[in-house]
Amino acid sequence: MDERRIGVFDSGLGGLTGLKRLMKLLPGEDVIYFGDTGRVPYGGRSAATIARYTRQDIHFLESFSVKAILVACNTASTVLPQLGGFDIPVLGVIEPAAEAALRATRNGRVGVIGTAATVRSGAYERALAGRAETLAVPCPLFVPLVENGHFRPGDVVIETVAREYLEPMRDFGCDTLILGCTHYPLLRGVIGEMLPGVELIDSGAAAAERMAALIRSRGLESGRTSGSVEYHLSDDPEGFERLASVFMESRVTAGAKKVDIEAY
Amino acid sequence: MDERRIGVFDSGLGGLTGLKRLMKLLPGEDVIYFGDTGRVPYGGRSAATIARYTRQDIHFLESFSVKAILVACNTASTVLPQLGGFDIPVLGVIEPAAEAALRATRNGRVGVIGTAATVRSGAYERALAGRAETLAVPCPLFVPLVENGHFRPGDVVIETVAREYLEPMRDFGCDTLILGCTHYPLLRGVIGEMLPGVELIDSGAAAAERMAALIRSRGLESGRTSGSVEYHLSDDPEGFERLASVFMESRVTAGAKKVDIEAY
Repeated sequence: MDERRIGVFDSGLGGLTGLKRLMKLLPGEDVIYFGDTGRVPYGGRSAATIARYTRQDIHFLESFSVKAILVACNTASTVLPQLGGFDIPVLGVIEPAAEAALRATRNGRVGVIGTAATVRSGAYERALAGRAETLAVPCPLFVPLVENGHFRPGDVVIETVAREYLEPMRDFGCDTLILGCTHYPLLRGVIGEMLPGVELIDSGAAAAERMAALIRSRGLESGRTSGSVEYHLSDDPEGFERLASVFMESRVTAGAKKVDIEAY
Repeated sequence: MDERRIGVFDSGLGGLTGLKRLMKLLPGEDVIYFGDTGRVPYGGRSAATIARYTRQDIHFLESFSVKAILVACNTASTVLPQLGGFDIPVLGVIEPAAEAALRATRNGRVGVIGTAATVRSGAYERALAGRAETLAVPCPLFVPLVENGHFRPGDVVIETVAREYLEPMRDFGCDTLILGCTHYPLLRGVIGEMLPGVELIDSGAAAAERMAALIRSRGLESGRTSGSVEYHLSDDPEGFERLASVFMESRVTAGAKKVDIEAY
C-alpha cells in the first residue's frame, strides 16, 4: 500500500486519453496531471529541446513526491532513455505500445504514425527491431486538426490529410498500426475507414495498462476505492474544461492550476 | 547615422515575410532576427503567457544594443501596450496594418483574420474604432497548414478550411482584409480566389514600411549600402534553411544560432 499519488504528463491535453484509461484501471488512485500547454506542441521541436522540456516536466511531478510517473506523450517518451535513471518508476508509452502491437500482429508488419519528432527518433523501430517489419510515417497535421475539431469521419479536411498520410501504410500492408501520439485515438473512426481490418494500438492506453500492472505487482495500490485528479497546466487554464472534455470523452468540470514550468 | 542594428522577432519564422520587406526598403541595414521556434506558436496561448514570452524576446534583442525593434508577429504585437515603455522604438504590426487598411478601404468595411489570441485581444477593433466597421475572424489552422506546405491554390485542404473561415467575410462585405498574421501572405492566392476584388493588407510589410519611415525620419540610417542578417532561434536550427526559404520566397543559406530564451 502506498498513499502517494501517480503523476501523468503530456505536452498538452492529448495525454488525457491515457489518463482516462488509467483511472478506469486504477479507480482508487489519486493522480496529478500536468499538461505543458504553454509550450505545446513538442512534436515539431528538436530532440534537445524535447529532452529539456521533458526533464522539467518530470521534475515538476517529482516535487509532489509521486510514487510513479506515466509519460502520456509519445514525443516526450522518445527522449526518456537519454534522461537517465530516476528514483521512482517513469514509464513511457513506446515500449508498452510496441509490445501490444507485437501481440496483435499476425503478418508481422507493424505500422507507426506519430509526430515528426517521434518518427525521426526511430524509437518504435528500435523497440520492434528483429520482431516485426516496421514502417513509420510522420503525421504533423493530425494534432492541430484534432485540436480544432476536425477529427470526425465525413470531415473532408481530416479525410484528405489522413488519406495522404496513410497511403504508404496501405502499400506496406500492415495488419497493426500503432497510434504513436495520444491525440490519435480521437481519429480511430477516420483511420479505421482508410485501413479496414487493421488493428489500431492506442499507445496511451497500452502505457496505462502497463502502469496498472506495475502498481499492482509492486503492491503500490493506494488501498482506497475512489481517487481524484488534480490538473496543472503551464498556460492559463482558460478553455481547459472544453478541450479536456473532448479528450476524456466526458464532461470535465475540475479546474486546473497554473504552474511556472520554467522554474523546474 | 547610427551603425547599430535593427532587431526583428516573431514567434517563429512567419516574421521573415516582414523581414524580407524591411531588407528591400533598407538594404543598408544590419538586422538581427529572432524566431522563438522553441515555443512557437503563440497564437493559441493566453495573453499572460504571450506577454511573458514577448518581454523575453525584446530583452534578448536589447542585449545586442539594437537601435529599434520590429515585432513581426501579430500575436506578440497585441500585448505591447501592456509591456510599457522602452528605451528604443519598439514597433508592432497592428497600428501600421490598421492605417494601411484605412487608406485602402472605400466602403469603410475592414475584415481582419488572425490567430485565436490576436482576434480575442480585440487589438485591431480598437485600432480601427470609429473609423471603419470591422469583423475579425480567428483562423487557427492557417499557421500549421502553411508550415506543412498546404498553402497553394488548388490544395483541397487549405481551400476547404479557408472557405469555412472566410464565409463570414463574404457576408460582411469588406473591401479590405488585414492579413493579421505574418504567415498569411503565403495564402494570398487562396484568399484572393475566395474574396475577389478585396484588397489584402500584409501586416508585416505595413510594419516594415513604418519602420523604414521611422529610421529615415530620425536619421538612424547606417550609412552603408548593403547589410546582412544574423538569425537566432530558440530551438535547434535543423530545417531552418528549408522553412526560411519558404517565407523569404528565395533561397536562405545563412545558418542560425541557438539561444536559450528562458535566460532573458
